[in-house]
Amino acid sequence: MTPLPPQAQIREVGLRDGLQSIPTVLPTARKCEWIAAAHAAGQREIEVGSFVPARLLPQLADTAEVLAYAKTLPGLVSSVLVPNLKGAERALECDADLMLLPLSASHAHSLANLRKTPDEVVAEMGRMRAARDASGKKTLIEGGVGTAFGCTLQGEVKVAEVLRLMMALLDAGADRVSLADTVGYAHPRAVAELFEQAMKLAGDRFCCGHFHDTRGLALANVYAALQVGVTRFDASLAGIGGCPHAPGASGNAATEDLAFMLAACGVNTGIDLTALLALRANVAAWLQGEPTHGALWRAGLPSTFQRTPA
Amino acid sequence: MTPLPPQAQIREVGLRDGLQSIPTVLPTARKCEWIAAAHAAGQREIEVGSFVPARLLPQLADTAEVLAYAKTLPGLVSSVLVPNLKGAERALECDADLMLLPLSASHAHSLANLRKTPDEVVAEMGRMRAARDASGKKTLIEGGVGTAFGCTLQGEVKVAEVLRLMMALLDAGADRVSLADTVGYAHPRAVAELFEQAMKLAGDRFCCGHFHDTRGLALANVYAALQVGVTRFDASLAGIGGCPHAPGASGNAATEDLAFMLAACGVNTGIDLTALLALRANVAAWLQGEPTHGALWRAGLPSTFQRTPA
Repeated sequence: MTPLPPQAQIREVGLRDGLQSIPTVLPTARKCEWIAAAHAAGQREIEVGSFVPARLLPQLADTAEVLAYAKTLPGLVSSVLVPNLKGAERALECDADLMLLPLSASHAHSLANLRKTPDEVVAEMGRMRAARDASGKKTLIEGGVGTAFGCTLQGEVKVAEVLRLMMALLDAGADRVSLADTVGYAHPRAVAELFEQAMKLAGDRFCCGHFHDTRGLALANVYAALQVGVTRFDASLAGIGGCPHAPGASGNAATEDLAFMLAACGVNTGIDLTALLALRANVAAWLQGEPTHGALWRAGLPSTFQRTPA
Repeated sequence: MTPLPPQAQIREVGLRDGLQSIPTVLPTARKCEWIAAAHAAGQREIEVGSFVPARLLPQLADTAEVLAYAKTLPGLVSSVLVPNLKGAERALECDADLMLLPLSASHAHSLANLRKTPDEVVAEMGRMRAARDASGKKTLIEGGVGTAFGCTLQGEVKVAEVLRLMMALLDAGADRVSLADTVGYAHPRAVAELFEQAMKLAGDRFCCGHFHDTRGLALANVYAALQVGVTRFDASLAGIGGCPHAPGASGNAATEDLAFMLAACGVNTGIDLTALLALRANVAAWLQGEPTHGALWRAGLPSTFQRTPA
């Protein structure tokens, strides 16, 4: 059997990808409580919000405050999503550890959602890099290529185009790149094939896989990615988020289920699962009425599970 | 990446493992409708019920009638679960294509559920084989080793004991053997390790993996098993079944999600997913009020999915 990497990192994206997709606006204090508890449970990377206009995403209007709090926690990598140069300037002002610029490899999706072609987003990456370099800040820049496995609007998205755009983001100044299955079209074989190529091209600048669980395959996809050496994954506590095209469907891989799978397979994430499940219960209570997902919270950890991280 | 087998078989166990776990008693005519539609959708192996006393499982009291109907469908392998020689005699009378004797590798679970030690179940297998041979029937005998990845009662179940019991079943007369994660303790690494050993020992007499989705890992586990060459899996339409120890938890892998993953990965199952999803909607309606599971039914097939089986 293919050996698995000894450790992997989960980036919590529930506070961004999760909260932006649901109507409930979580108060700033609750977000900070979430981040503190996630940090206490061993999570070391959290996407705390997004610098988009508050009128578009009122759920994330407090991103600057949340980020300021997150930056007080030792050893935590606090990242934000930025849709453009303007957002990047705010991320730089706020000293985010990392800012992620999403690009949609589907032209149709890119035009519909960002009103830009993918190559115009690449150009924006160049401007972001110039702004970062001019600012003297240490904020890392990640380019995230979405709809990497297909798109509900456009249908097929060619592998060659995904890889071209990924490399174009690096050439334009991204420090690292990631690939996202935005709409839950990925399957393990496609993941193994695409991620193997992505890692060959980008080397250790290829940093992360982002899988939505829309069709139930997120964890199988992570396992396939692990086998080709990917060691960082986005996930959302309680699987919050969902997909606007599939009412009731899951969002990202549920952090707690992913952390369980990794730990059970002997891949160390540094996460204390008992603490994470306690946080999951709190977050689900704060979001009462919103659909949550995942399986581990109902069943609990196996009695044979080693509770302390290796 | 590890090449996947070109084809795999899904055995539908919703009518047995699913229905036995829920209070609703599905009328015989509905069960036959289910089987006919599953057959029309391309399913070729169905566990139609269980020959246990009707007072224990009234949901499956009509197994003989359902089996008689299933046997009229061309090319369908109709199997039944039998807990002991008495059940096996009924399966032989009814000309089942296959009868499955479950054995629990956990001594604690075996005593609690079957009131027999695992080795007493092995002895029963010997009597079943003698009865089959004496009957002149062609009914195949499968020995299914459950709690193969651990047990809620006993905790750890040793790999050596699982493999010893699997081989003992073959030695006692089983034609084939399978392994089951009865309580959702398996994870992909454990599956790859155990199934690889099982296939080395039993060769092509090792026939099937049975994964409960209690902790969300059923599909990842199937993917791991596929990679070591396993090509037959149990699954339950709409994931019905559940686990008595985890209220609300999923049952088996959902047939439709599993069939989707396999087809998407290029592993042919012969199943028409559009027809299967239509059947899933009917079964969910027949079982109104019972929890159903799975993800594909909400999201639908990707627009890029090839609908006709290869």
